[in-house]
Amino acid sequence: MSVPAPPRFTAPVADFAARVRDSFARQPAMHLIGAAVSAIEPGYCEVTLPVTEKVTQQHGFVHGGITGMIADSAAGYAAFSLMPADASPLTVEYKINMLNPAHGDALVARARVVKAGRTLVITQGDVFAVRDGAEQLCATMQQTLIVMRGVPDTRRA
Amino acid sequence: MSVPAPPRFTAPVADFAARVRDSFARQPAMHLIGAAVSAIEPGYCEVTLPVTEKVTQQHGFVHGGITGMIADSAAGYAAFSLMPADASPLTVEYKINMLNPAHGDALVARARVVKAGRTLVITQGDVFAVRDGAEQLCATMQQTLIVMRGVPDTRRA
Amino acid sequence: MSVPAPPRFTAPVADFAARVRDSFARQPAMHLIGAAVSAIEPGYCEVTLPVTEKVTQQHGFVHGGITGMIADSAAGYAAFSLMPADASPLTVEYKINMLNPAHGDALVARARVVKAGRTLVITQGDVFAVRDGAEQLCATMQQTLIVMRGVPDTRRA
Amino acid sequence: MSVPAPPRFTAPVADFAARVRDSFARQPAMHLIGAAVSAIEPGYCEVTLPVTEKVTQQHGFVHGGITGMIADSAAGYAAFSLMPADASPLTVEYKINMLNPAHGDALVARARVVKAGRTLVITQGDVFAVRDGAEQLCATMQQTLIVMRGVPDTRRA
Repeated sequence: MSVPAPPRFTAPVADFAARVRDSFARQPAMHLIGAAVSAIEPGYCEVTLPVTEKVTQQHGFVHGGITGMIADSAAGYAAFSLMPADASPLTVEYKINMLNPAHGDALVARARVVKAGRTLVITQGDVFAVRDGAEQLCATMQQTLIVMRGVPDTRRA
Repeated sequence: MSVPAPPRFTAPVADFAARVRDSFARQPAMHLIGAAVSAIEPGYCEVTLPVTEKVTQQHGFVHGGITGMIADSAAGYAAFSLMPADASPLTVEYKINMLNPAHGDALVARARVVKAGRTLVITQGDVFAVRDGAEQLCATMQQTLIVMRGVPDTRRA
Repeated sequence: MSVPAPPRFTAPVADFAARVRDSFARQPAMHLIGAAVSAIEPGYCEVTLPVTEKVTQQHGFVHGGITGMIADSAAGYAAFSLMPADASPLTVEYKINMLNPAHGDALVARARVVKAGRTLVITQGDVFAVRDGAEQLCATMQQTLIVMRGVPDTRRA
Repeated sequence: MSVPAPPRFTAPVADFAARVRDSFARQPAMHLIGAAVSAIEPGYCEVTLPVTEKVTQQHGFVHGGITGMIADSAAGYAAFSLMPADASPLTVEYKINMLNPAHGDALVARARVVKAGRTLVITQGDVFAVRDGAEQLCATMQQTLIVMRGVPDTRRA
């Protein structure tokens, strides 16, 4: 069996990490659920969400939509880390499989760029539930983003 | 051109609407974002989300993950409306395309059951942005759920 | 319950139907399985596949991959019908749910454009099994295509 | 950056490899396109397709539907390798991203089980184009299958 190693990328902007953290900080929805960027590399991003009652569904697990939110965000920022200064990412679509119930102390979403094209970026990501230091895979995602050139990340609606 | 009409369903539980509303009310994540069930029929559910700053991303639009959350929820409850009293729905996976930026006064997610099998339920849903009374389609979703028999919806993690 | 009516489109090229049929005729893979275009309108395409043993899997049903092939093709040509003369479609991704076993006299894939953007086109499609004149829905698909401008459909690898 | 290692599986049936090859041999659709199983391990399967004109589309690349077919097949057999003697796999849904044009001497689809549940199996797979001995990733897929218990693989429609 062989699993392809993720490609190695170089970020076109020197301060890509600060740029990602700054953009993330401007997302009210991420504040609302309590998520934070916990790691950023060229073509890779990790988002961590402490599990508190407010993000759960009726069975006490983290709501599947919240799991999707942090996977989508981590993947979007993995893509953003590879974009030039005048561009920003927009999610075209994503597909997520829920593999195990999401409960524990925190969820960690880890996403990587699979292909960075000029117009489209394809990513994959996994969400793990962390409990007493051990991790269990609870979701896996595949996503397509479009590179919006000439649209800096600071634009407002 | 022909678009297939959605199948007509009969709910196996008389008080399916109250059951959906009661379950939804027990979801802290839906309270967190401010979403509510605005319509429920056998095999169909509509969820409405007022657009406030807390659900936005860095460009001032509703966060794509939030859009996914209400689509996933509406579809899950469309499926739940067709389940017997001792069963509850669990999302297996969903795929969502973002079609237009989500901004306006409110988002409305409308989802319907495409096939209600004994073990799996397939749904489709759309999310519309409502602005000054007019609607624009901003996302469309396709989802698979599993019927958990012997697992009443009130179970806690 | 309300299902959104598909948008009405106008084809930018007068002979869009001939262009679709000509392009389809140049696809050896469609000849191989025996598929043909059975209807074409602006933003809509129908592909029909007679069910013969060669397209089946080990249980005697049409192979799921073949079902996916005709859904992907019908949707790609629905998109192509709306493209200018110097552009051609390329599938970015698709997601297909298999709803019922595909067997009968023929399969019919019907696909429609949901959004025709400048760069991306989003489609949805259904595959029906036809048996003794009656149809049963056997698969449903959601797809993203990219418009390749300056790449006429006649380019060869 | 970390990519989760695929889980290690043990096949419940001693002759799982022969069982996979035997089932594959009974698929007329795989004969039609010329695909063959080139490797099988517990929870893993590789399918190889020589590139000939018959599997191409109008631009001379392998048809995207054919790429999807071999990805779906490899993943289905990765799942089948972990099933007990009285069970067989059925594709519930799959989502595939096309990353690069598929051309070369052959396509190789490699798929692995991500989670083997009692009822559902989740897989991921990649399709590579092989040219002069070098490989390029041309598609990546995520799939859900259902385990049909009491339905041996030899059932006919």
